[in-house]
Amino acid sequence: MYESLKFNLNRLKNNKIFELSVVTVIIISALEIGAKTFELPDSAISITDILDIFITVFFLFELTIRFIADEDKKNFFKKGWNVFDTLVVVISLIPINDSEMALLARLVRVFRVLRMVSVVPELRVLINSLIKALPQLGYVILLMFIIFYIYAAIGSFVFAQINPKLWGDIAISMLTLFRIMTFEDWTDIQYETMEVYPMSWVFYLSFIFFTAFAFLNMVIGIVVNVMEEEHALARSAKEPSMTELQDEIRELKAMIGELKK
Amino acid sequence: MYESLKFNLNRLKNNKIFELSVVTVIIISALEIGAKTFELPDSAISITDILDIFITVFFLFELTIRFIADEDKKNFFKKGWNVFDTLVVVISLIPINDSEMALLARLVRVFRVLRMVSVVPELRVLINSLIKALPQLGYVILLMFIIFYIYAAIGSFVFAQINPKLWGDIAISMLTLFRIMTFEDWTDIQYETMEVYPMSWVFYLSFIFFTAFAFLNMVIGIVVNVMEEEHALARSAKEPSMTELQDEIRELKAMIGELKK
Amino acid sequence: MYESLKFNLNRLKNNKIFELSVVTVIIISALEIGAKTFELPDSAISITDILDIFITVFFLFELTIRFIADEDKKNFFKKGWNVFDTLVVVISLIPINDSEMALLARLVRVFRVLRMVSVVPELRVLINSLIKALPQLGYVILLMFIIFYIYAAIGSFVFAQINPKLWGDIAISMLTLFRIMTFEDWTDIQYETMEVYPMSWVFYLSFIFFTAFAFLNMVIGIVVNVMEEEHALARSAKEPSMTELQDEIRELKAMIGELKK
Amino acid sequence: MYESLKFNLNRLKNNKIFELSVVTVIIISALEIGAKTFELPDSAISITDILDIFITVFFLFELTIRFIADEDKKNFFKKGWNVFDTLVVVISLIPINDSEMALLARLVRVFRVLRMVSVVPELRVLINSLIKALPQLGYVILLMFIIFYIYAAIGSFVFAQINPKLWGDIAISMLTLFRIMTFEDWTDIQYETMEVYPMSWVFYLSFIFFTAFAFLNMVIGIVVNVMEEEHALARSAKEPSMTELQDEIRELKAMIGELKK
Repeated sequence: MYESLKFNLNRLKNNKIFELSVVTVIIISALEIGAKTFELPDSAISITDILDIFITVFFLFELTIRFIADEDKKNFFKKGWNVFDTLVVVISLIPINDSEMALLARLVRVFRVLRMVSVVPELRVLINSLIKALPQLGYVILLMFIIFYIYAAIGSFVFAQINPKLWGDIAISMLTLFRIMTFEDWTDIQYETMEVYPMSWVFYLSFIFFTAFAFLNMVIGIVVNVMEEEHALARSAKEPSMTELQDEIRELKAMIGELKK
Repeated sequence: MYESLKFNLNRLKNNKIFELSVVTVIIISALEIGAKTFELPDSAISITDILDIFITVFFLFELTIRFIADEDKKNFFKKGWNVFDTLVVVISLIPINDSEMALLARLVRVFRVLRMVSVVPELRVLINSLIKALPQLGYVILLMFIIFYIYAAIGSFVFAQINPKLWGDIAISMLTLFRIMTFEDWTDIQYETMEVYPMSWVFYLSFIFFTAFAFLNMVIGIVVNVMEEEHALARSAKEPSMTELQDEIRELKAMIGELKK
Repeated sequence: MYESLKFNLNRLKNNKIFELSVVTVIIISALEIGAKTFELPDSAISITDILDIFITVFFLFELTIRFIADEDKKNFFKKGWNVFDTLVVVISLIPINDSEMALLARLVRVFRVLRMVSVVPELRVLINSLIKALPQLGYVILLMFIIFYIYAAIGSFVFAQINPKLWGDIAISMLTLFRIMTFEDWTDIQYETMEVYPMSWVFYLSFIFFTAFAFLNMVIGIVVNVMEEEHALARSAKEPSMTELQDEIRELKAMIGELKK
Repeated sequence: MYESLKFNLNRLKNNKIFELSVVTVIIISALEIGAKTFELPDSAISITDILDIFITVFFLFELTIRFIADEDKKNFFKKGWNVFDTLVVVISLIPINDSEMALLARLVRVFRVLRMVSVVPELRVLINSLIKALPQLGYVILLMFIIFYIYAAIGSFVFAQINPKLWGDIAISMLTLFRIMTFEDWTDIQYETMEVYPMSWVFYLSFIFFTAFAFLNMVIGIVVNVMEEEHALARSAKEPSMTELQDEIRELKAMIGELKK
């Protein structure tokens, strides 16, 4: 009996209409979250409360189906997306009366929108490919962090007296440097320190050059990566390689060589 | 007689001088629109009024020719550019006395300049290729929208009290986030919320990283797309593939194999 | 005798030391121009005056040598760089006493620095390749101009009353739109018009999207161009094409076919 | 005995645990530098003083090992990274009592973090490849400098009276132009000069176009470079070239030709 239930649930899970209704409920939950940010009349608030319960129950129901229908229950929670879905559903279930916790409860509900990514396969592929690209960029990111750290240390040693709000300690300095990297009012910061140290423009210009250079390197790294994957794909396709063609021609030669004898 | 008219109009339509005069009238209409934004003496205003009538009549005339000369009248309005041209001409024809509508009438005339795109084939190709590229980017745009929506929801839940002008509801918050994405005075917004929530820099930095990452992905997606199209083009060219060469060499082997017997 | 003079001048022109001394004089003229922007003591000013005469005479001398040494005097002034060099030298020769013209005279001397480009072959190649790339981008630039023109027309029709300094006429509006494209305090402009037209954010966002899209297209256009040139270069190299290989294999088959008979 | 010491030190140098402990000490020294930028209690300051001595001694110890273990002592100081390491260690050894020099001593200690690059091979490869890319970009950088120099000269001749803080001399003008290139409040500078010279927007727009163009050229130059290196790598791989295949087919033909006789 359990097997037939599992079979039926699996059929339900893969049903187009069921998939569509899950997406619809996620969109409704997104709209509900959006609506709550506006000032609503009391009647609308009570509707959102009912909607909230409905969405929570629906998600719980959907997750249960997915769990029961899964062939390999031991590894169900080894998949990142399943853990994420379960967390979102479970935290929504915790009853919150405390007004302090109300904000947190709202925030958790916001992450329901991210379930769109776990449900739509194309988005899941996109996110997975982004996550895969991260480690390859690891050393460039480490280099960038070292550049930030050194400049932040120098900045807070030398400029801390001039403007403690921007250069007070190494943490604030790194935030200020990030601001400089985005070119956001960076000359104001520069002119301020240039009044005390007229040569401090060297600090800013060299920082901008180094980060721009590291960033450029990162972009090129990604492009080269993408291209290499393409090439690898082309190579793995059915097309024979030049070496294989050469081998075949050599076999031909051997055959003709035999004919001569 | 109708057939000979159609034939003559078709010859006219494809005439170089006729094409050039259409482009000229569009440029004149563009200059007229530009001139109207300056303060003009009364005499100049009456000239623009006459010009306006002339341009409307000319465009009506040109569209009529194009319609009559068209072989396949049923599908004439299935082509986007024809519909666009007709709309621009028809709306220009509506007489407007109401001063309130005068602004709208002016705006419609502005779109006459877009007719340049529908008339110059190279521009039409450019626009068509841009439109074709859009659906391929669909999922990245959807992902970006989800990122915006989640951050806007969080922003308006947490920061609405601090500055309702920037974080009042989810719509305003999304506009504020777009501003942050363009790095436009984003630190002012950040410093404001950091006074209440000192850790809120995490919100801004993570948002900038996610959008930059998604954007980078989009650019790479386009580049890969362009390259793949190139490859497909190269493949469809006359050059035989490696596999075809291999097949020919194998036929050779079979022939020599037969010789041996 | 003239022939031997030409031969000797040609040897001088191609002499490494002569080339180096031309570059040195250009660098000196650049330094002199830079020095003049600082407040100098009287003695230094009289030195720059003497330097100025020396540089003018040297450039006149060098140009004369280049002209006499040239084999094909008729086409000497058909080369853009020669015309540029001559213009810079000739205008430097005009004596200027009028204080009003002094600024203009200074500006012309600034362009002497550009002679560096006409003298160093690598820079000349760089500039030439940039100029070559321009017409290929022609239609994208035209499209961008049309976008600017339409948005500027709409902007000056609708927003002229709100802030005539930014949207007064179509010319000022285009400058304002360029500013928006560089994201320079664009939200200030947006918030100002949103107070009167709350939906005017559509105007700004759509403009940013269209220009970013057109710009992206331009970049991709350049990249594809560069890659195609590379491919063309590879194709023109000695390597035989697949088709040529196929032909050779077919000849082989014909030869074996004959053997059979 | 010396040989066996060298052998043992070499084994130590290449020991995984030793390498890891070097990285750990560098991270500790980085954290210490970061901690010093915060206001610390007296007890913590005395700890950092002890840490400082420990780090200096450890680095001296490590450098000595590396030097003794090196096979080729004559060329030890010809490697840039070794010189850098030695400088950082030696300068740390100089005792500083003077309060004026204290800042300098701190700054030198900051560069200890850069030792991370000299120790982690992957980062060293990254930096080396960045340095290698520089000379290839040499001429584009020279061109960019010429553009900056000419615009700075024009700017300080024409605008010096309007705002000496921005256009006072050629050095300040170049800094202002760099600011304009980053789009940082560039319209404020523009509007200021446009009040005196209404056409001065040409100066700013042309500058932005030229630098953007040169920058684009630089990026494409790097991409093409990277791709060419890839191609060269592919070519140097085992795969036979088309020409080699052609040669083999021709040999075949000759063999069959002989058969016929």
